[in-house]
Amino acid sequence: MNQESSIAILAPGLLGGSLALAVRKKFPLAVIRVWARRSEALDEVRQRLPSAIGSTSIAETMQGASLAILCMPVPHMKAAAEQIIAANTTPQLLVTDVGSVKGSVVTTLEPVFASKGIPFIGSHPMAGSHATGMAHARGDLFQNAACLLTPRESTPSEALNRLRSFWATLGCRVLEMSPAEHDRHVARISHLPHAMAVLTTLAALKDDNRAIPCAAGGFRDTTRVASGDPTMWSGILRENRAEVLAALQDASGHLNGLIELLNSGDEAQLASFLASAKALRDLVPAPPELRL
Amino acid sequence: MNQESSIAILAPGLLGGSLALAVRKKFPLAVIRVWARRSEALDEVRQRLPSAIGSTSIAETMQGASLAILCMPVPHMKAAAEQIIAANTTPQLLVTDVGSVKGSVVTTLEPVFASKGIPFIGSHPMAGSHATGMAHARGDLFQNAACLLTPRESTPSEALNRLRSFWATLGCRVLEMSPAEHDRHVARISHLPHAMAVLTTLAALKDDNRAIPCAAGGFRDTTRVASGDPTMWSGILRENRAEVLAALQDASGHLNGLIELLNSGDEAQLASFLASAKALRDLVPAPPELRL
Repeated sequence: MNQESSIAILAPGLLGGSLALAVRKKFPLAVIRVWARRSEALDEVRQRLPSAIGSTSIAETMQGASLAILCMPVPHMKAAAEQIIAANTTPQLLVTDVGSVKGSVVTTLEPVFASKGIPFIGSHPMAGSHATGMAHARGDLFQNAACLLTPRESTPSEALNRLRSFWATLGCRVLEMSPAEHDRHVARISHLPHAMAVLTTLAALKDDNRAIPCAAGGFRDTTRVASGDPTMWSGILRENRAEVLAALQDASGHLNGLIELLNSGDEAQLASFLASAKALRDLVPAPPELRL
Repeated sequence: MNQESSIAILAPGLLGGSLALAVRKKFPLAVIRVWARRSEALDEVRQRLPSAIGSTSIAETMQGASLAILCMPVPHMKAAAEQIIAANTTPQLLVTDVGSVKGSVVTTLEPVFASKGIPFIGSHPMAGSHATGMAHARGDLFQNAACLLTPRESTPSEALNRLRSFWATLGCRVLEMSPAEHDRHVARISHLPHAMAVLTTLAALKDDNRAIPCAAGGFRDTTRVASGDPTMWSGILRENRAEVLAALQDASGHLNGLIELLNSGDEAQLASFLASAKALRDLVPAPPELRL
């Protein structure tokens, strides 16, 4: 497939940087252009990927691009979109993003691009890390990750096919859903766990952190994502606020249920509460590298 | 040091089985006796560790033992203790356990052993897995794990020194604290995270599990321990109920705070809430194998 000949990656953070490395490997003939706000960020890109063409100008970065991928924080995407439509773009140009929310992103960006006849389809590769920046970028970050595409009824099928093919070539399992479905699912499977890791950390250590030397793998795993970037995550939680609040209310209901069960001392009921969670957790496939 | 010449391990589950494998490696000359309730469990032990002497009789297992380690679930420990004091034991015998709670264990078992002049000191190696049983036992499970010892004022220092030396020989970082301190710290660093993983799983998937294919590393890590054995964990949460309830109440307070922050839309406050958790989480050392 590999039909994309010139790929523009806007903002080389952990995701954009990993994307540049992955594209280099899977699309060996493609021209890779990377835009960054700061020229220091481009120096980092050149160190990891000398063949990438860096620029701090969006107009320059868009030259000849058949595919552009917005990798900056969601609040900065609209300004980037406006610069893209003001630039000289090819008739083949297809634009996507890698933002963690889709309802607001698609609603905001699609009309901007549509005004110039450029198709925009939201993407959300379910890959990342609590670490940030090009320094932690990894070319295999997308291998076996789910990538959620959020086309709309108006999305041209040729553009959707190209985008499917792009992510599949990077090794992703491509799933499709509406922007609203995306935001509901991701609130539950990503934003809620992030919030719960934060709450676990605070409840465990805020008043008294002397338990830290006792920590083992359970605490480390359960709270790992709480080390994520607070500014990025406050943006994500706010953008998906309604769905995140619904998930947190459910968590609060289950928490009150657990407190009641512990107060009642009914151990069989408590075991069955824990068993219902185990049954659900056991449905989640192990990561491919650990599958037997 | 390696002064223990004959070590009795009672109940070869994940911890007891891993202990047998670790003792074999670090105390190559010691006799290892393993007691199990079912003879099928002893067959599993013989497969992994042919040199272990298995028995379904506690009296037989105690023959010649200088150290006995109770690895059964906490509710079964008292009955085992009573069989130990009824057996023919050596004057060197020191008894410990690996239970996840210490207040109730020490209060219950110490007088039983004291009635025969046998020193008992609680141990809690902070090692384990969501998997259970001898089949998942690993000889390196204790390497670099914290092991919390809970001596009392009356504990003979010679016995405490021997127990310290035993766990250190297995590769543990030995920490000492009172049974009450243990239960407070472990409620925060182990039992709370377990409960939160259960709540996260239920809030994410109970009403609608269609988000499962979207799951990535964040969900997997945050909820991994929710796959733990429900019966074992309901016992642990019940045994440490007061401290677990206090930790869950704190989590509930932080959860309500987060819901308020999201409702208020104050993104700077939300970012600072997330940053306070990140600062605490960043204090937790990475596991030794990942340290740079």
